[in-house]
Amino acid sequence: MHSDRLLLGPGPSNPYPEAIEALSRPVLGHLDPEFLTLVADAAQRMRTVFGTRNRLTLPVSGTGSAGMEACLASLLQPGELAIVGVNGYFGERLCEVARRVGAQVHAVHVPWGRVLDPERLLDAQRQAPQARLVAVVHAETSTGVRNQIAPLRELQDTDTLLLMDAVTSLGGIPVEVDAWGVDACYSATQKCLGAPSGIAPVTLSERAVQRIRDRERPVCSFYQDLSLLDDYYQGDPPRYHHTASSTLISSVHAGLGRLLGEGLPAVWERHARVGERLQAALPELGFELFAEQGHRLPQLTAARLPDGVSDAAARKALREDFGIEVGGGLGPLAGTGWRIGLMGHNAETRPLTTLLAAITSILT
Amino acid sequence: MHSDRLLLGPGPSNPYPEAIEALSRPVLGHLDPEFLTLVADAAQRMRTVFGTRNRLTLPVSGTGSAGMEACLASLLQPGELAIVGVNGYFGERLCEVARRVGAQVHAVHVPWGRVLDPERLLDAQRQAPQARLVAVVHAETSTGVRNQIAPLRELQDTDTLLLMDAVTSLGGIPVEVDAWGVDACYSATQKCLGAPSGIAPVTLSERAVQRIRDRERPVCSFYQDLSLLDDYYQGDPPRYHHTASSTLISSVHAGLGRLLGEGLPAVWERHARVGERLQAALPELGFELFAEQGHRLPQLTAARLPDGVSDAAARKALREDFGIEVGGGLGPLAGTGWRIGLMGHNAETRPLTTLLAAITSILT
Repeated sequence: MHSDRLLLGPGPSNPYPEAIEALSRPVLGHLDPEFLTLVADAAQRMRTVFGTRNRLTLPVSGTGSAGMEACLASLLQPGELAIVGVNGYFGERLCEVARRVGAQVHAVHVPWGRVLDPERLLDAQRQAPQARLVAVVHAETSTGVRNQIAPLRELQDTDTLLLMDAVTSLGGIPVEVDAWGVDACYSATQKCLGAPSGIAPVTLSERAVQRIRDRERPVCSFYQDLSLLDDYYQGDPPRYHHTASSTLISSVHAGLGRLLGEGLPAVWERHARVGERLQAALPELGFELFAEQGHRLPQLTAARLPDGVSDAAARKALREDFGIEVGGGLGPLAGTGWRIGLMGHNAETRPLTTLLAAITSILT
Repeated sequence: MHSDRLLLGPGPSNPYPEAIEALSRPVLGHLDPEFLTLVADAAQRMRTVFGTRNRLTLPVSGTGSAGMEACLASLLQPGELAIVGVNGYFGERLCEVARRVGAQVHAVHVPWGRVLDPERLLDAQRQAPQARLVAVVHAETSTGVRNQIAPLRELQDTDTLLLMDAVTSLGGIPVEVDAWGVDACYSATQKCLGAPSGIAPVTLSERAVQRIRDRERPVCSFYQDLSLLDDYYQGDPPRYHHTASSTLISSVHAGLGRLLGEGLPAVWERHARVGERLQAALPELGFELFAEQGHRLPQLTAARLPDGVSDAAARKALREDFGIEVGGGLGPLAGTGWRIGLMGHNAETRPLTTLLAAITSILT
């Protein structure tokens, strides 16, 4: 028996029907010309969603965490300095991954739930202009905070690259890689893009590509070396690297097709509308919104539970009685808060009203 | 329009119908108790196919190359020595990946197409007992050679671990992780296991697990750190690491179910039978088998093309006129030979006879 969940946590979300349908297409070989055309088409769709004309735009064969690691491992050499904005779990993870690949990390912390101050990041770079990159999470999935990226654009005038985590933002709120001067950006497919997990869309500016080509030491990860992936997907002839899955790429391609058919502005508007309604309703049910006002993501809402409500029992009831998944809290919200996603296919009225009715039923 | 290929290259092979069907199951969250039960069931099936009782047996969220890197990155610290048997492309890749994670590599070479001499590997270890592991490819996908693993069992009496690449062997020929004293083994799902690509089954002995727990430096890859994956899949409570794909795990679970329902001996026999028939037929068509006699894999056959046959033109005709994919050659066979796989669902009479008829048609 297979349970049929309404997935309203921090991801995976329920994929679009088109993305599910595409999973059953006949498998193609990883060097089949037809497969490489499919990858190129999918990459073109990714460019549109990323807001970029970057040539190097490709699917990493792993989840968003693999996308993060592919960027950090490819762009940083041991001993180099990275400045990381940290206001939640995924900022912390950026530090952890950067340290593991041998980089020095200067973390600019603000408390979880507050928004990063771009000026502090720029100041940190001014004081350490040798820093090789500044890394920021656009949509902090642990807290529901939307960080500002556009003010960091002035890093373009320095030798420091700008790396943006768009795992939860891409397809849910505007992302403008080129307009914001972002040099490296990664995302994931199971959130606002409406496909299953397993692929990390990645895009690099030309100066980021050059950074990798100029390395003195090889990237510590063969699997996640973005220059090898570039030689595979866009090489002439394509250079074998790994056995990419036509099954997953087909699904992402179809999910992106659905999204772009609706149009980015309409999709963003849909996310904004249901997120606003959720965030208006939760306080009336006794929840306390966690993210700083004015900097809340519509697609992912973190909230403290009403007094006296047991996290584990309430989530179990939601799952078992209603077939609804919401996410547990991380950090200061662990055991005391939830993370609710209305993303991609689920950024619609029905999932929202279903959830609110179920929560009301459980709490009363 | 979607092409429907008969995939007779080195992988992917066409998945079992059960594995395709499972792709469309409702998505489960990566921390859903039902998903973690599915992972545990899939891991139990992997244990059976691996021939092991190893507790740490899990799916890495990437292709076989990610499985290779997860093992090498997790088991080797910078500066440590690895002895690698090299008689083909994937032996070379083991060296490359080990060097990238900072290890010293002592490669024991024999020419491509010849079988490795286990005694030379054991000698190398005797001369360098500080070596942290000996790594060998069981089924060399570039040449069709079947290397012997069982004689390396005596490494169990040393402090050197035995790492086996079972990407192309698992499910196609007997693999006995425990009986052969293998400490670390990885595979891939798109070959003899009959599922799409995207998951790397990995298993570690207790002393390999201890090796990771005893590390002084963290694994350079967060995504592929097997101790973190262990804490995720078998932690109590499970510790979030990445958003594993229930879509892919469901498919692998179903493919393994089909395989084990038929029974390993019957599956091995099926691979042996069609491989033998292919290898009897190819020389009659003017092909020259590449692998050393007596050490040929049934599931993957490398062969030089008949004189005067153009690799590119013949493969294009197979693909476009017959919808059949075979693999191009690597190394000494590049441009002059093919790699033909009869694996998993395609280790049957119909794919074999279809291929032979198509080749006959093209060559005459």
